[in-house]
Amino acid sequence: MVVVMSPDATPEQIEAVVSRVRTTGGEAFVSRGVQRTIIGLVGDVDHFRALNLRSLPGVADVIAISTPYKLVSLDHQPVRSTVVVGTGTGARPVMIGPDTFTLIAGPCAVESLEQTLEAAEMAKAAGATMLRGGAFKPRAAPRDFQGLGKVGLHILAEVREVTGLPVVTEVIDPGDVDLVTGYADMLQVGARNMQNTALLQAVGRAGKPVLLKRGIQATVDEWLMAAEYVAQRGNLDIVLCERGIRTFETATATTLDIAAVPVVQRLSHLPVIVDPSHSAGRRDLVLPLSRAAIAVGADGILVDVHPDPEAALCDGPQSLAGADVRELASTLRRLIPASGRRLGDPSPVGL
Amino acid sequence: MVVVMSPDATPEQIEAVVSRVRTTGGEAFVSRGVQRTIIGLVGDVDHFRALNLRSLPGVADVIAISTPYKLVSLDHQPVRSTVVVGTGTGARPVMIGPDTFTLIAGPCAVESLEQTLEAAEMAKAAGATMLRGGAFKPRAAPRDFQGLGKVGLHILAEVREVTGLPVVTEVIDPGDVDLVTGYADMLQVGARNMQNTALLQAVGRAGKPVLLKRGIQATVDEWLMAAEYVAQRGNLDIVLCERGIRTFETATATTLDIAAVPVVQRLSHLPVIVDPSHSAGRRDLVLPLSRAAIAVGADGILVDVHPDPEAALCDGPQSLAGADVRELASTLRRLIPASGRRLGDPSPVGL
Amino acid sequence: MVVVMSPDATPEQIEAVVSRVRTTGGEAFVSRGVQRTIIGLVGDVDHFRALNLRSLPGVADVIAISTPYKLVSLDHQPVRSTVVVGTGTGARPVMIGPDTFTLIAGPCAVESLEQTLEAAEMAKAAGATMLRGGAFKPRAAPRDFQGLGKVGLHILAEVREVTGLPVVTEVIDPGDVDLVTGYADMLQVGARNMQNTALLQAVGRAGKPVLLKRGIQATVDEWLMAAEYVAQRGNLDIVLCERGIRTFETATATTLDIAAVPVVQRLSHLPVIVDPSHSAGRRDLVLPLSRAAIAVGADGILVDVHPDPEAALCDGPQSLAGADVRELASTLRRLIPASGRRLGDPSPVGL
Amino acid sequence: MVVVMSPDATPEQIEAVVSRVRTTGGEAFVSRGVQRTIIGLVGDVDHFRALNLRSLPGVADVIAISTPYKLVSLDHQPVRSTVVVGTGTGARPVMIGPDTFTLIAGPCAVESLEQTLEAAEMAKAAGATMLRGGAFKPRAAPRDFQGLGKVGLHILAEVREVTGLPVVTEVIDPGDVDLVTGYADMLQVGARNMQNTALLQAVGRAGKPVLLKRGIQATVDEWLMAAEYVAQRGNLDIVLCERGIRTFETATATTLDIAAVPVVQRLSHLPVIVDPSHSAGRRDLVLPLSRAAIAVGADGILVDVHPDPEAALCDGPQSLAGADVRELASTLRRLIPASGRRLGDPSPVGL
Repeated sequence: MVVVMSPDATPEQIEAVVSRVRTTGGEAFVSRGVQRTIIGLVGDVDHFRALNLRSLPGVADVIAISTPYKLVSLDHQPVRSTVVVGTGTGARPVMIGPDTFTLIAGPCAVESLEQTLEAAEMAKAAGATMLRGGAFKPRAAPRDFQGLGKVGLHILAEVREVTGLPVVTEVIDPGDVDLVTGYADMLQVGARNMQNTALLQAVGRAGKPVLLKRGIQATVDEWLMAAEYVAQRGNLDIVLCERGIRTFETATATTLDIAAVPVVQRLSHLPVIVDPSHSAGRRDLVLPLSRAAIAVGADGILVDVHPDPEAALCDGPQSLAGADVRELASTLRRLIPASGRRLGDPSPVGL
Repeated sequence: MVVVMSPDATPEQIEAVVSRVRTTGGEAFVSRGVQRTIIGLVGDVDHFRALNLRSLPGVADVIAISTPYKLVSLDHQPVRSTVVVGTGTGARPVMIGPDTFTLIAGPCAVESLEQTLEAAEMAKAAGATMLRGGAFKPRAAPRDFQGLGKVGLHILAEVREVTGLPVVTEVIDPGDVDLVTGYADMLQVGARNMQNTALLQAVGRAGKPVLLKRGIQATVDEWLMAAEYVAQRGNLDIVLCERGIRTFETATATTLDIAAVPVVQRLSHLPVIVDPSHSAGRRDLVLPLSRAAIAVGADGILVDVHPDPEAALCDGPQSLAGADVRELASTLRRLIPASGRRLGDPSPVGL
Repeated sequence: MVVVMSPDATPEQIEAVVSRVRTTGGEAFVSRGVQRTIIGLVGDVDHFRALNLRSLPGVADVIAISTPYKLVSLDHQPVRSTVVVGTGTGARPVMIGPDTFTLIAGPCAVESLEQTLEAAEMAKAAGATMLRGGAFKPRAAPRDFQGLGKVGLHILAEVREVTGLPVVTEVIDPGDVDLVTGYADMLQVGARNMQNTALLQAVGRAGKPVLLKRGIQATVDEWLMAAEYVAQRGNLDIVLCERGIRTFETATATTLDIAAVPVVQRLSHLPVIVDPSHSAGRRDLVLPLSRAAIAVGADGILVDVHPDPEAALCDGPQSLAGADVRELASTLRRLIPASGRRLGDPSPVGL
Repeated sequence: MVVVMSPDATPEQIEAVVSRVRTTGGEAFVSRGVQRTIIGLVGDVDHFRALNLRSLPGVADVIAISTPYKLVSLDHQPVRSTVVVGTGTGARPVMIGPDTFTLIAGPCAVESLEQTLEAAEMAKAAGATMLRGGAFKPRAAPRDFQGLGKVGLHILAEVREVTGLPVVTEVIDPGDVDLVTGYADMLQVGARNMQNTALLQAVGRAGKPVLLKRGIQATVDEWLMAAEYVAQRGNLDIVLCERGIRTFETATATTLDIAAVPVVQRLSHLPVIVDPSHSAGRRDLVLPLSRAAIAVGADGILVDVHPDPEAALCDGPQSLAGADVRELASTLRRLIPASGRRLGDPSPVGL
């Protein structure tokens, strides 16, 4: 950390900062300039944060140099992680990580067994090795369809049995974590709940891999801090998902921050995937954004597919169907090898 | 709603939209232009939303004309509401609404009985008629102070007994709503949880007034939809709190959207207050922003005060103390009457 | 400035930074931490910026502590400035500064002599001491009305002669600065041109006061750097105008950053006013935002008025007329004294 | 266009809208709903915009359905354009369009003949067929290096003679357009000047192809309107360049809006390229973002290279050099064919 003093800070005020830092066993190096004095801090950052130095008289600013996340950082673990999803439920386990490119696909919302099964078959045909599908749907508008709840979880488990695809589904209430954990292979924390600390802590204790979407208002640093909340409960099986941030542009639902993928990869060892469906909210952009995700180096994509988008109860306008799914399949087959990865990822026998 | 067809939409596609609308009992008016056809829909908007018209072939866009919230809208209740806080707990009840200007003040976090009591006395001296204080603190950084929890709730209740000030405090886990309801006079839903629908529904059922902060990424419409989630559970005692939105500007923690106050007042009957402390994150801006809040027509402000900001465990840099509190008091006394309201608001005897 | 080294920076890389800094006569203080080394720089910031330290091997980040503007900063001139507008053109000069609150009003665009004169009389009745009006209109849409140009300037001068109000009008082409200077009392640089350095330099040399609007994408620091471009040409008669920044919120045209007023006042000695008309783009918000501007401590407001908003060729939806103008007048008379200033400001005789 | 009336609009107010529309020869279709009436307009949109309907009593909102640009729209010209750069100056002409992928590279700023020549050779080695280099540099900070001006233009012309690469360079003052046109093969309008209408009109008349960068605050619609300003002067040889928009994220200089590429391609026939260097402002992201640009379907990229980034006078931290340039070259050779295009594009003899 660096403490920047005001131009009119007194020597006593500078000394007070130094003393307070030393109470924590830290060290403070003072650089006296013509206009300002700055103080470099060396020691335990968590201790420094608790010192509340910005409130001391004469302090103009406190600048954080190191990041407030540790377990998920590349400093902590310099080798990129692979997260295994789908063990112990009869599914065919999937590895998400630096060597593969994983397609996770399925309906935005589980509406019926038939619709989910059909979507899962479409997903599989396109190369998907995991199924997505929402049983609990957090919606901005209170009268929109909110999901089938427990019935939806049953359906997902049935479809897994038929298709062998591990299932990722969203949980929105900490009180439902146990329930959802009983059905799903991976727990999704949605963008709206990225800073819902009660939920982050609950999924951190659940013993299943977690898919953590970036909040539409969240900086990369805040996203990694949210992941740290999960990791602190002993769960490092976290996959990050970039799904667009809120900006002034209205041509798309949100602005896909494609640069966030390499930015995260320089800060954290966790896998990071991209959601081209929800970021744009437009079916016609799913394919170009999927190609961009592959090329930029993402570890996978999360795509909405639906057998009948016109009848979808949720996010129909962004769901792929028919010819689009076939084009996605051929795109993946062509581009992924050019990017030095292999598609899909049925993990080796014996896992 | 208005459905905008693509320039190349066929007559059959236009007819398909009209037919689908009519299945809901709605009416569709077609305007055929040189370049495009648009279709105006008349009927139940919730039905139209469920139709998923944007997914139909030939549809370029669907534009919502009416809002997806009802109970909290000015159309539903054309007279501005007054919310009474503090009945049944021995506190002196407070009315928040169009006739008064309410100062709610207190420490960002409850740290000890002594600190909270001292802050409450400061708040009272400045003209506050309600106490704020956090027992559960949602923090971006997982190693920052997360609040005293239940102990903090006890302290708040004790301080209420001594000072007579009703208490507002944040709840972050739906599972804690019953606990917090047992102590607080008003339940706060924080900015990070504005779209935590499980929490919104839980506080909606709790039988206490709710203080709903705007999410830093939320449009005014989304904020009112969040309020509608609460209202749908039978609770219309909601006070909205503008606390800044996230923009590119870094001179302040967030950008206070002062225009949101009159914007909300033209859409909803709910009271709306301003949080000058968290929006700027800078002590030196609390007074100017408090003045702006009064002048723009807000129903109150929510201000952090702390007896010793340098020692605060949370948000010390933005807490008022000493001379600043006295200046706040004199500002309120001068400006509020010039704005045609009265300060504070011990409600009439007999409430 | 502070140079933050990478965790894996070598001693040689650290030494290279120190050496390069010393070539400029600056001093470098090294703080070696467990994880990182940081280097505090003391000396001439402009020299340091030219060193391009961020490109040196082992450098993770370079953090600016001081600001890259000087002439407009409060450090350079610790007393707040007053800008006098309207000398030498037969107008009644106006002082914009810390003691007064100046209402500048007029039509968004000059359409005819009659319309401009009528608007000027409305403005005057509301308490305005300066007239605004656009002869050159930069418009986003190329087929929208672009202003009367030179004819508009003639009209403004005529209206000044009749009303005595000094005139501020926008200039958008450096090649037109001489022309506009021949007519106007104050040159406006619009939000779209805030970073048009050729224009900033041209108005800096023109010998007339400048009204510099904040770009809708500009940080406060960038805005002050734009003012510095003007000041560097020898012109410190600059008035800043906050007119809203672009955010995700769509209820208003832009989001008025009301906090920018006190933020600027803590960084710069220049007067700062607010444009409630263009920031919101809604007539019904002009009055509440004007009140907020007064209360927050702005030195004035810039308001669109039009005798017949329905017939306006530009920005009719935000122009005040009739009863609204009368309400503005009474608001100003009530609130300005309560804020410790005096309205309008015909400067003392003899100026 | 669609006019939305207020819930309390009177029949007379509705009729007034209809009458006014008919004065322009347009047609108005009224849809009367339970809560609101909406009016669909059919006719000349430019006429409707001039009607100022939003100012009429009873009008709640006016929604534009069609776009205010025409010449640059895909409706106007349904086949995607190819822009030829470099005829008549002795350079080897280049075609930018749907069949090729063009690498434009060079130093951010022209500093000397030697540096520019060296950078041009690096660019060529990486596969570039065009040279970029700034002679006039618009900088946020007034004391930063502002370019060599005319001397820089001379250098660029000399380097073109040696290398055969056509030259694109920025012009920032309408008064310099003739000068720059005398040297350059393509005129760049920078992000800061995207809404500088005087400049747009000047380059529109200059008779050279134009590279139009998107403003960091500009929506796609505003960007296309800026292109329309150029096109209206008779110049349709416009290449659009996405270079990042301003958001709250601070890990990158701006947020590359990768989705803007396919969005533009669905609205306009103009070629669109990507600037991975300025959007991120970080050298380590240039390669991943270049890959994303290829995959998403851009028509080219604009990349900063510098023989000695540590000594660069401008934007050194984002310039590629040495091994990075070689990696860019091999990336292009591998990915572009996989995207169905061919690299570089010396146009066929005889052009």
